[in-house]
Amino acid sequence: MDIASLAGLVLGVVMVLLGIVTGEGGFSLIPNFIDVTSVIITIGGSLAGVTGANKIPDVINGVKGILLTIKEPGYNPGEMIGNIINLANVARKEGLLALEEASSNIEDPFLKKGIMLVIDGTDPELVRGILETDLIYTEDRHKKVIGLWEKWAELGPAWGMIGTLVGLVNMLKNLSDASTIGPNMAVALLTTLYGSLIANWLCNPTAAKLGVNNAQELLIKQIIVEGLLSIQAGENPHVIEEKLKCFLPPSARDAVGADAGGGE
Amino acid sequence: MDIASLAGLVLGVVMVLLGIVTGEGGFSLIPNFIDVTSVIITIGGSLAGVTGANKIPDVINGVKGILLTIKEPGYNPGEMIGNIINLANVARKEGLLALEEASSNIEDPFLKKGIMLVIDGTDPELVRGILETDLIYTEDRHKKVIGLWEKWAELGPAWGMIGTLVGLVNMLKNLSDASTIGPNMAVALLTTLYGSLIANWLCNPTAAKLGVNNAQELLIKQIIVEGLLSIQAGENPHVIEEKLKCFLPPSARDAVGADAGGGE
Amino acid sequence: MDIASLAGLVLGVVMVLLGIVTGEGGFSLIPNFIDVTSVIITIGGSLAGVTGANKIPDVINGVKGILLTIKEPGYNPGEMIGNIINLANVARKEGLLALEEASSNIEDPFLKKGIMLVIDGTDPELVRGILETDLIYTEDRHKKVIGLWEKWAELGPAWGMIGTLVGLVNMLKNLSDASTIGPNMAVALLTTLYGSLIANWLCNPTAAKLGVNNAQELLIKQIIVEGLLSIQAGENPHVIEEKLKCFLPPSARDAVGADAGGGE
Amino acid sequence: MDIASLAGLVLGVVMVLLGIVTGEGGFSLIPNFIDVTSVIITIGGSLAGVTGANKIPDVINGVKGILLTIKEPGYNPGEMIGNIINLANVARKEGLLALEEASSNIEDPFLKKGIMLVIDGTDPELVRGILETDLIYTEDRHKKVIGLWEKWAELGPAWGMIGTLVGLVNMLKNLSDASTIGPNMAVALLTTLYGSLIANWLCNPTAAKLGVNNAQELLIKQIIVEGLLSIQAGENPHVIEEKLKCFLPPSARDAVGADAGGGE
Amino acid sequence: MDIASLAGLVLGVVMVLLGIVTGEGGFSLIPNFIDVTSVIITIGGSLAGVTGANKIPDVINGVKGILLTIKEPGYNPGEMIGNIINLANVARKEGLLALEEASSNIEDPFLKKGIMLVIDGTDPELVRGILETDLIYTEDRHKKVIGLWEKWAELGPAWGMIGTLVGLVNMLKNLSDASTIGPNMAVALLTTLYGSLIANWLCNPTAAKLGVNNAQELLIKQIIVEGLLSIQAGENPHVIEEKLKCFLPPSARDAVGADAGGGE
Repeated sequence: MDIASLAGLVLGVVMVLLGIVTGEGGFSLIPNFIDVTSVIITIGGSLAGVTGANKIPDVINGVKGILLTIKEPGYNPGEMIGNIINLANVARKEGLLALEEASSNIEDPFLKKGIMLVIDGTDPELVRGILETDLIYTEDRHKKVIGLWEKWAELGPAWGMIGTLVGLVNMLKNLSDASTIGPNMAVALLTTLYGSLIANWLCNPTAAKLGVNNAQELLIKQIIVEGLLSIQAGENPHVIEEKLKCFLPPSARDAVGADAGGGE
Repeated sequence: MDIASLAGLVLGVVMVLLGIVTGEGGFSLIPNFIDVTSVIITIGGSLAGVTGANKIPDVINGVKGILLTIKEPGYNPGEMIGNIINLANVARKEGLLALEEASSNIEDPFLKKGIMLVIDGTDPELVRGILETDLIYTEDRHKKVIGLWEKWAELGPAWGMIGTLVGLVNMLKNLSDASTIGPNMAVALLTTLYGSLIANWLCNPTAAKLGVNNAQELLIKQIIVEGLLSIQAGENPHVIEEKLKCFLPPSARDAVGADAGGGE
Repeated sequence: MDIASLAGLVLGVVMVLLGIVTGEGGFSLIPNFIDVTSVIITIGGSLAGVTGANKIPDVINGVKGILLTIKEPGYNPGEMIGNIINLANVARKEGLLALEEASSNIEDPFLKKGIMLVIDGTDPELVRGILETDLIYTEDRHKKVIGLWEKWAELGPAWGMIGTLVGLVNMLKNLSDASTIGPNMAVALLTTLYGSLIANWLCNPTAAKLGVNNAQELLIKQIIVEGLLSIQAGENPHVIEEKLKCFLPPSARDAVGADAGGGE
Repeated sequence: MDIASLAGLVLGVVMVLLGIVTGEGGFSLIPNFIDVTSVIITIGGSLAGVTGANKIPDVINGVKGILLTIKEPGYNPGEMIGNIINLANVARKEGLLALEEASSNIEDPFLKKGIMLVIDGTDPELVRGILETDLIYTEDRHKKVIGLWEKWAELGPAWGMIGTLVGLVNMLKNLSDASTIGPNMAVALLTTLYGSLIANWLCNPTAAKLGVNNAQELLIKQIIVEGLLSIQAGENPHVIEEKLKCFLPPSARDAVGADAGGGE
Repeated sequence: MDIASLAGLVLGVVMVLLGIVTGEGGFSLIPNFIDVTSVIITIGGSLAGVTGANKIPDVINGVKGILLTIKEPGYNPGEMIGNIINLANVARKEGLLALEEASSNIEDPFLKKGIMLVIDGTDPELVRGILETDLIYTEDRHKKVIGLWEKWAELGPAWGMIGTLVGLVNMLKNLSDASTIGPNMAVALLTTLYGSLIANWLCNPTAAKLGVNNAQELLIKQIIVEGLLSIQAGENPHVIEEKLKCFLPPSARDAVGADAGGGE
């Protein structure tokens, strides 16, 4: 599990609570910040906009996407490069057909599909075309989910302001009892607070994290595409290693070298 | 019918009403939020800007575009891939000319036009050129409609603020009767509220939804272009299937395989 | 004449007046909204910025560009496609040199130049290079004019705020007479109102409309480039028609077919 | 000298003064708007950010860049095209080597370098590569200077707001003497006013003008690159003229033709 | 050491202190601006968002990135060009294999790797591919660090506003004692002040400076790629010098010539 996103959410709640309870009155002030109607208006209104901006299955799929922010992808670029170098060595020594057996315990469906195409003797341009189409539309689908969280981050504060305007108009129409101005104003401000939290505590970091995961997955897939095409072209495994290590930060390159050396 | 956009609009209205009637006074407060002049200024002013930014027919066409947000496109990528694989099988077994009969019950005009070009023996580069020109300018026209809603989303709050400034100046010039300050201020704020609703309840989600529909249509058209050119190049239907399935999310790929298998 | 932009400006004025005169006091309130100094500061300050951001001739040229928003371009894509198909038929039947006579009554200088290049036997790559350079730098010059209006739209509200800040400081330094606070505040707000009108009533729609006209002109020019190169390549007029009609919305395509058929 | 930027700055000052002195009190109000500490905080703070965002020599170089906004470049595209056509005629009649003498009185270092490369018989691809590298990195350096002014335009209002917040906190902590609230508030607002002026009077127009000059220089350099490569390829001077005139607005093309005709 | 970023930070602190102590009360006012809870909420909340938007190691790595803003890269483009010209002369006179000895004292790992590839006789396209992959993903990693500081610059003011809203609600709920309104309001504003400082004093300049360093490193690497490929292609050292000097501003070109001349 990748705890960063979860830790971010928990820490954010702690910060808001800290801000509340350090006022004179301590924990007794917390109820001042809870107003069910305001919650419903801000979340409901902004989600209404998000729904109107999408198709229903994409909304459900997008909202569930938050679970991906805490999921470890289960592989890393260095490991993948090691795998590909091993495959390159197999192909070099035993021929492309030997990849079938060598890939039997590979789980990554993208790599598996690519190997099958190579074994089938598909034209390299077509292999690249097929794998890159997959890559492009994978990113497209990720961007749809990310876009939903960005849209919510945009609409949350907007509906927070709508809620506050509604509250202000109600308050201003009825200024006769001066003692109620403060509390009414406080309630009116709550939707702005909720809207800001939706954006800056929840949606903005979630969208950004999904983008980080997308970049990571694309990196892996680009390594696979370059690696497979090099294997198909019969390039020297050492050159392939050199090439693929360029995808990694310098500090991570030596580790790959060691692994690959062991695999040779 | 695609109910998401309609649901979003209805839900948004419910949220605003909820915000109003939960003030002390309940449903009797609703009239406080209705001011015909303010409605006219905010909608009229922002639409004046939208009109000035376009040609009259494009304004009419663009505003009517909202109806497309609730229309189901009537086809889906998976189905289209199934159709193309069937056509590929026909072409493979009976030759390109047999596509004429096989396409007689196809309704999609873009696919139909592409098949005609292929049957006529048009040069593949020219087929791609013609279909991609169609695709690019289709997107161009969609973007014009989307741009109109985005422009309205931009000008709505701006004219809401103009209305509020006009109201404030009127109010400030005449501060003698303190009891009218609150209600006058409330009325002045209504245009800001309306402007915000125009943007965040109506225009922003509508523009985004039209963008989603545009992306969906372009995806279908790109599948058609790739598929037809593969058929023209005489590629193996299984490879075509493999290629086109890359346009789909992994979860939808198996379903296509099954369909296509049945069609073979 | 294209009345959309003019109508937008007039409608905008009506909306502001409506907002003013519906206050208690009716038309007598209008003078409250007119303050010559504020007008000078807001327009003068923002135009000072626009001037500083350009060269003098470009400022004059750019400001005059607003007249283009109400000018009909005098041709449309469908008509142009008809013309080109007619030229294609002439070239097909009587050879490229016959284009000289056929083009004698053509007024569009871009099409005329292109035909001359084709008649002179210029290399197709060079024809494309010359015409596309023209096209790119035409857009460049349009973008300069559009950019001026966008810059003004950006600086208008900024100088409106500067004016309001100046007014506020003057007011706050002298709070002794409470009865003047309201009216002074009202005057201070006027520059914000003017700035917002400069942006949202005048400049933003003007810039957008100039962008629409630019897109329209580029579309025509792209049709000309594609059409002329197809004629030079000796393509079949029917294929040329099919190709050029892809630039049009489906609803406009049949009309072109009919015209072209009559012209054959 | 290009007076537009200077005129813009002067006009801006006049507008602000106009706004100040039309308050009741006239010129005696000017001291209200001068607060040395506020000036130091706003300019100092924003320049601190600009410094931190760059290297020291780039800051000095960038700030001095403002002088370029009032400098005439000393050549114009039409003139340059005339020069190149003359060179083309020389090369056509007397051979490429004759360019050495013909270029002896050329001052533009970019054109001079290009001619030397052509005379040396450098491979055309390499000539283009060298000149375009020069062009790209010239733009890169210009963008660094422009970026500095844009960064200042961004940080000016931000530090204006920081100054105002500091002033507000000081004021709010000490509300006992009501008569000081107004003047203290006025002083607090001054940094916001200064920040807004830094951005909208000084930096934003300066950055934009430097962008205009950059575009002008790039246009000239692109004309030179296209022209020299055409000369090297031995193209007909009339075709070169036709090609290069596409970089100019139609209204400026005839003038070039006349000049070039005279030069032949 | 590159002192610009450090100087910027110190200068910013001085400016804020100056703004504080020039209020009536001088240095005794400083405690008014220090509120530990507000510091924790603003920094903690915004860092919570930054953490949630990334993976833990990337957060640590990113935050440490600030140290790079004060580190001199230890080489400059002019020097690197001199080195490459020397290598070109060696390769010209003694052959590509002589580069091995000549490069023995080179420390730059990117240049070293490139030379090894050239010596090994790797195909030029592959050399370019490997080096450019390295370059692209180096920039990718830099952008990750820059993105973290930009995200913090974005979330800082947002959490400042959240803190202020929390403070305002607490204050408004309890307006009975009028004398506490000012001080409470002052405390509420502190988080907005802190948030603005996080963005405009710390994060925005840091992100920009890291971008400047990134551009510098990419420039060096692009010079290396172009230089090595020219050496491999056996180009004339004088032409290589001419080519690489185009990466430099005109003022720095002569210095390189002198160095290179000395190295020949």
